[in-house]
Amino acid sequence: MRIMGIDPGLAIVGFGVIDIENRKTKAIDYGTIQTESSICYTDRLLCVANSLKKLLDIYKPDVVAVEELFFNKNTKTAFAVSQARGVILLTVLQEEIPLYEYTPLQVKQGVVGYGRASKQQVQIMVKTLLNLNDIPKPDDAADGLAIAICHRNFSSLNTITQQGVIK
Amino acid sequence: MRIMGIDPGLAIVGFGVIDIENRKTKAIDYGTIQTESSICYTDRLLCVANSLKKLLDIYKPDVVAVEELFFNKNTKTAFAVSQARGVILLTVLQEEIPLYEYTPLQVKQGVVGYGRASKQQVQIMVKTLLNLNDIPKPDDAADGLAIAICHRNFSSLNTITQQGVIK
Repeated sequence: MRIMGIDPGLAIVGFGVIDIENRKTKAIDYGTIQTESSICYTDRLLCVANSLKKLLDIYKPDVVAVEELFFNKNTKTAFAVSQARGVILLTVLQEEIPLYEYTPLQVKQGVVGYGRASKQQVQIMVKTLLNLNDIPKPDDAADGLAIAICHRNFSSLNTITQQGVIK
Repeated sequence: MRIMGIDPGLAIVGFGVIDIENRKTKAIDYGTIQTESSICYTDRLLCVANSLKKLLDIYKPDVVAVEELFFNKNTKTAFAVSQARGVILLTVLQEEIPLYEYTPLQVKQGVVGYGRASKQQVQIMVKTLLNLNDIPKPDDAADGLAIAICHRNFSSLNTITQQGVIK
């Protein structure tokens, strides 16, 4: 089974692709989609959608897991990023790939086993679990892999609801 | 020129379609896309996208104008609706239809000429400008028409930026 994890954003979308075969987990690729703040907002949304569509075409994941957003403040940025997340969800849904959503807390629980784990603890666990030489860079790409690992761990525990969405 | 105005939402998306010919403005249709809260969130997003795609296929607008969201509070609803707005924007962008965005203040200014106009003042103006027998119902459909009228008025004033987005 191939899982793509996505850390949503507008300026940077992180992604990580892992394969699970015979209980072994292997990193296939990871990276980011980046959009320049100098181009207009709607072009940035379209760039995120088109780039993600290309990644889905290349890696053909069996499932996609997308992290939920968490904002403390009601900023304009929060709404801009939420709209970008909507674009990401629609792009996956249009490809008819099963889609799962996890909160940041669930990702930490799913990777480290502890919902209040630090970012560094998550990154070290990603490196260890995937037998990588270094912590993947940038952070958004490491987060993409973490979300994919989170889905692997939750799905192996059979905690996925019938709707295919963990809330 | 045919303009579609969209009042974005998740539970209810309002739309209004107007034609401008020889300086006369005519209402072609208005209504809503509605999604049930009982179905899962991602299915609601897909329903909004597919229904809007059908409306774009039916009415073939030359331009689409979408209202910006305004929230006082950082609620979970605000983010859910923002994601739905992202889905609406992407659906229009994928059809390669020119897209314009207006704040609620701009819509009131564009329709009534006064940014602090009441909802009722906007609705009466929509009825009057389009020679309708009654105020369109529900409110979301009237808002869709108001957004289309707003775009007509702003574009006739040549205030549209080169990026095609009024901020």
